[in-house]
Amino acid sequence: MILHGFWRSIATMRVRIGLSLKGLAAEEVPVDLLAGAQHAPEFRAVNPAGAVPALVTEPGAPALFQSLAILEWLEETQPDPPLLPQGARARARVRALALIAAADSHPLSVPRVRRALAERFGADEPAIADWARHWVGQGAAALEGHLARDPETGAFCHGDTPGMADICLFSLAASAGLFRLDLSPFPVVAGIAARCAAIEAFAAAQPLRQPGAPHLGS
Amino acid sequence: MILHGFWRSIATMRVRIGLSLKGLAAEEVPVDLLAGAQHAPEFRAVNPAGAVPALVTEPGAPALFQSLAILEWLEETQPDPPLLPQGARARARVRALALIAAADSHPLSVPRVRRALAERFGADEPAIADWARHWVGQGAAALEGHLARDPETGAFCHGDTPGMADICLFSLAASAGLFRLDLSPFPVVAGIAARCAAIEAFAAAQPLRQPGAPHLGS
Repeated sequence: MILHGFWRSIATMRVRIGLSLKGLAAEEVPVDLLAGAQHAPEFRAVNPAGAVPALVTEPGAPALFQSLAILEWLEETQPDPPLLPQGARARARVRALALIAAADSHPLSVPRVRRALAERFGADEPAIADWARHWVGQGAAALEGHLARDPETGAFCHGDTPGMADICLFSLAASAGLFRLDLSPFPVVAGIAARCAAIEAFAAAQPLRQPGAPHLGS
Repeated sequence: MILHGFWRSIATMRVRIGLSLKGLAAEEVPVDLLAGAQHAPEFRAVNPAGAVPALVTEPGAPALFQSLAILEWLEETQPDPPLLPQGARARARVRALALIAAADSHPLSVPRVRRALAERFGADEPAIADWARHWVGQGAAALEGHLARDPETGAFCHGDTPGMADICLFSLAASAGLFRLDLSPFPVVAGIAARCAAIEAFAAAQPLRQPGAPHLGS
């Protein structure tokens, strides 16, 4: 499999984790979002939407796209270990928690939105970072509200094994790291993120662990 | 069933359509987002994230939340007629198209984001409407790129019956209507939206057809 991604892409990170939890490997081909490579005709042929991740599962097959749709595909084609629990109600809960992070929160701080804030409203770097922090924090607060209340919450979002919601929660925690948002006001979220970080499938998927990422301390 | 929603909510609209296509009925209880009712303790008890839609499927059960997770729950509990096609690859395509509209595009023009643009950057009404139009247009362009290319596209997003992607495409078209975005540069999207609008389950779910909506022309 070929995973078209980018070291810094939070959505690509989700697919890396899903593949790794399922015991699958994909060769990652970088699409330099900072250089605009997602707009090049060669990549538009892979994903006309011009976004990563895009997963080519076999030569010649059209790429799968959108991280949550790719995770659902992984779950359907490689059910073990499961990323979703048994039971329609439990599955709805996990999917909804995943969507809080991936749909409500994350789209507000992606590069194209940060650029648009500068271009349209003259927002400077600190104001843009504060915008991103705000929406990551809103996502963390919404997750905390559910996780702290629900009896289904365990060591992870749903019971004691990591799944689709944890992948998305961990990706939100990665955004919090990029934008320097302190997660300690959200102790259940922070606790689950820490337990995820102790699992190699999660830790190895982090932006700064990817080829092409800037070296810490350099 | 009780559907906590709001006449103007694009995400609530998706659940209305899904229920209706499945032949299910829910009593809709309005949560006045313009008056801040989503922040009231009574509603936070229903959905700690303070967002609609929230679907209570039986008395005393915790509410289901997030429109796409609710649609997946409907699909699992009431499979006929299907909102997703057979086959993991086809299902991934439909889910990904749905996510372009519901996750990449829609979260950028919700009320809380429009308010934040005014508060943080002093954006005025025309600038905010232009922002919303831009992101709805980006979503339409991304959908058009896929739909115009893919052989699976038929009268609807995937073949000739409406499903999850069409629900989300139609919700994007509703946003385009609210923000006065002309969809004619996206002919495949516009064509599918028109075919959806001819189906009562879609037409009846539209914002201006809900109790509490302002009367057209009044």
